[in-house]
Amino acid sequence: MHADLLIRQIGQLVTCRRDKPGPIIGESLNHLEIIENGAVACDQGTIVAVGTTEDVEREIDADCATIDAKGQVVTPGLIDPHTHPVFAATRETEFEMRNLGKSYMEIAKAGGGIRNSVRKLREAPKETLFENGKKYLDMMMQYGTTTIEAKSGYGLSTESEIKQLEVIEMLADNHPMDVVPTFLGAHEIPDEFRDNKAGYIDLLINEMIPTVAERKLATFSDIFCEKDVFEIDDSERIQTAAKEHGFKLKFHADEIVGIGGAELAAKLGAVSADHLDDISDNGISAMAHAGTIAVLLPGTVHFLDMRKRPPARKMIERGVPVALATDFNPGSSATVSLQMIMNLAAVMLKMTAAEITNCVTINSACALDIDGRVGSIETGKQADFVIWNADNIKQMPYLYGCNLVDKVVKNGRLAN
Amino acid sequence: MHADLLIRQIGQLVTCRRDKPGPIIGESLNHLEIIENGAVACDQGTIVAVGTTEDVEREIDADCATIDAKGQVVTPGLIDPHTHPVFAATRETEFEMRNLGKSYMEIAKAGGGIRNSVRKLREAPKETLFENGKKYLDMMMQYGTTTIEAKSGYGLSTESEIKQLEVIEMLADNHPMDVVPTFLGAHEIPDEFRDNKAGYIDLLINEMIPTVAERKLATFSDIFCEKDVFEIDDSERIQTAAKEHGFKLKFHADEIVGIGGAELAAKLGAVSADHLDDISDNGISAMAHAGTIAVLLPGTVHFLDMRKRPPARKMIERGVPVALATDFNPGSSATVSLQMIMNLAAVMLKMTAAEITNCVTINSACALDIDGRVGSIETGKQADFVIWNADNIKQMPYLYGCNLVDKVVKNGRLAN
Repeated sequence: MHADLLIRQIGQLVTCRRDKPGPIIGESLNHLEIIENGAVACDQGTIVAVGTTEDVEREIDADCATIDAKGQVVTPGLIDPHTHPVFAATRETEFEMRNLGKSYMEIAKAGGGIRNSVRKLREAPKETLFENGKKYLDMMMQYGTTTIEAKSGYGLSTESEIKQLEVIEMLADNHPMDVVPTFLGAHEIPDEFRDNKAGYIDLLINEMIPTVAERKLATFSDIFCEKDVFEIDDSERIQTAAKEHGFKLKFHADEIVGIGGAELAAKLGAVSADHLDDISDNGISAMAHAGTIAVLLPGTVHFLDMRKRPPARKMIERGVPVALATDFNPGSSATVSLQMIMNLAAVMLKMTAAEITNCVTINSACALDIDGRVGSIETGKQADFVIWNADNIKQMPYLYGCNLVDKVVKNGRLAN
Repeated sequence: MHADLLIRQIGQLVTCRRDKPGPIIGESLNHLEIIENGAVACDQGTIVAVGTTEDVEREIDADCATIDAKGQVVTPGLIDPHTHPVFAATRETEFEMRNLGKSYMEIAKAGGGIRNSVRKLREAPKETLFENGKKYLDMMMQYGTTTIEAKSGYGLSTESEIKQLEVIEMLADNHPMDVVPTFLGAHEIPDEFRDNKAGYIDLLINEMIPTVAERKLATFSDIFCEKDVFEIDDSERIQTAAKEHGFKLKFHADEIVGIGGAELAAKLGAVSADHLDDISDNGISAMAHAGTIAVLLPGTVHFLDMRKRPPARKMIERGVPVALATDFNPGSSATVSLQMIMNLAAVMLKMTAAEITNCVTINSACALDIDGRVGSIETGKQADFVIWNADNIKQMPYLYGCNLVDKVVKNGRLAN
C-alpha cells in the first residue's frame, strides 16, 4: 500500500479508538488503547495503517518519508471545542483589576468585560482581526491543537457578527487549523440595547440568526445562558429559533449562577453545554439522559479564581459525556494551550491522565460532531497527530506550564 | 565606549533598579522603572550602558552587534531562588494518586514522596543525574530563567548528598545557567533512620554539614522544618550548626502546618523562609522585623491543590520582603517555568504584574544574596536579559500556559 508519511517505533501510540460511535462515557473514559512500539502511516492526509511498527511496515511500500518516535508518546491531534480566538485587543488591565478585588460581574457592569471587546471589535478592520487570530492559531498548533471551534460574539450587531464570522472563515480557509464556526450573537446584550433586551432578542431571532444561516457562516448557535444576561426563557426562544434555521446547539450554561441551563440544553437536544460550574443534580441527570456533552473549562475557573468547580467526577460517574476546552478568550481565560487545561483538569477536576486524554481528543471531536473524521488514530481518519516529549501519558498533565509537544502532524504534514 | 551587544528600540525596558540596596518592600514593590524606546548595551558579559536608544547609541561605538526589540518588553533574566532540579525520575504516578484522593502526607507515609526520589537518586549514576538536570536547566532557560538556586536533599546520606551536590557543581560548571548550590540534607528522615531521628540529626551535624562545608559544595543550608519531620527544636540545632560552619540559611517553613518556622528563620538570621502557606501573624512580624525574605511558591499550592495560600498581600503590607520561585521538583511542583508562577502569583496570591516582576528578578536575587551582581539592568551588572513577546508587563502573568519568551541573553550572549 502506498503511504507518504510513516511515524514508527512510537514508544506509546495512544489511538483513542472507541468500541462504538459517540463519546466515551463512565468507566470506559479511563481506558486507552496503547500500542507499544507502534506505528501509523498516512497518505495524502488520511490514515492508511495503524498498528505495531512491524505490522505497519509490512503493509506499506518502502519509499515513504519516516519519523522515528522512539520512546515518545503519539496521540491524535488535540481538539479544542470552545474558543473565542477572534478579538481586537487583550484585556490584561481587567485581569489585574479582578485580582485586586473587582468581581467579573462588577467589571462587566462597569462597561468592561465582553462589552469592552465588543467596542474594540466593531472598530477593528477585518485584516487586523485576521492577523491577531492567525497569531493565536499558530500558537495553539505549536501546543498540539489541530482542530478548534471558534465563536463570534464580540460583534453583537448583524454587521459586526458577520464581520467576525467572516474572519473566522478567512482563518479556516487560510490556516492549517481545522476551524468549526459558532454563532454567538447571544453572548451579551450590547450597549445600545441595555434597556431593551426584548429588542435585541427580536433582532437575534428575526435578523441575525436568519442571515447567518442563509450565508452558512456557522455550524453551531451558542448562547450565554446566565442570570441577568439571557435567562432560561430568553435562551429557549433564541435557541429554538436557531434550531429551526438548521443550527446545531451549544450553551454557556450554569457557569456563575445555576439557573437550569444544563436542563434546557438537554431538552433542546444541544450537542454540548459548557462551563457548568454550578450545575444541579437535576442538570446532571438531564444531560446524562440526553447524551448532551459537558464541555468543562477549568482554565476559566482558574483564571477567574472561582470557588466552584464543575463536578467532573460526579458527571463521569453518572454517565454524562465529558470533554475539555481552553475557553481561550481575552477576558476570562487567556490561554491557547490545551496542555495547560490538561494540568488543570488533573489538579482541579481530579481527572486521570487517561480520562483527560480522551476528553481532549475523541470526546472533544464529539462535542463538535466531527468524530467520524478526527479525534482518534484509525484508518480512514484525518492524519492529525501530536508527537510528545513525554515517556508516558501521565506525564502530560503532570509537567505543567511548558510545551511538551515535539512535533505536530496536520493533515499528514509536519506543522512545526 | 566599546560594546559587543546592543539591544535597542525596546518598547518597554524594565530595569528593576532599586533606590537602595536590599529587597524592595511594601508599596515600592508595585513600582517599576520603565524606559520607553529603551536600550541596553553590554561588553564581555557586563552591562555598560542603559537608557533611551538615543542616549545609549550616543555612548557606544558603532561597530556593535544589535538586536531590535521594537514593541517588545525587556526585563532582567529571571531568577528562580528555590528549585530541586537534580533527581533520577519523575513521579507522575503519585501525582495521579494524589488527585484521586491520597494526601501528600499519606503518600509520604506510605514510602512515596521524597523518599521515593531518595531511593532512585542513590542508585543513579552521576552521569544520568547530570543529563536529566541539564535537560531541565535547558528548559528553564528557554522559559526565561538565567539564575537558579539548586538544592540537594534526595541523597540523605553523606555519600549521596555529596554525589547530588557534585552533580549540581557539574551543572554550574557546564551550563550557561548560574547555579547557587544549597545543602538540604535535612529534607526528610531517610528510611534507615525512621526509628532513630536523633541518629540522623547527629549524622547531619557531626558529619554531613562539616563535610559539605569543607568541600565548599554549598552556599546555603536549608531544612524541611515541618510537623512530624524536623520540628522547631531539631531545626534550630541543625541550622545553628550549619551557620557555625559558614552556611547562609534557608528554611522550608510553615508549609503544611504552621509551627513557627518563620519565627525561627527570622531568629537565626536566615536569608529566606520559603512556602509559608500557614504562617502566623507573629511569623509575619518576625520576618518583617528581621528582613527575612519570604520566597513564595504558588506552584506547589496549585500542584498539591492546597486550600491555604501564603498571605502575600498581608506580607507585602506589613513590610516582609517577598520573592517568587517555582519549587521545581518531581513530587510537589513539576514546572520549570517562572512564567507559570507569575500567572499563579497573580491569580492565587493577588499580586500585581509590577510586584511579580520585582519578585522574580531583583528580590529573587536578594533571596540568593547575589543582588549586587544580577537581578536588575544597570551598568556593572551581569548581562542577563529576557526579550519578551509581550506589549507590556501586565501581559506576562495574563497570557498563561505558554512561553512568551522571544530571546534570552545570558552573560551577554544569545542563549536560544
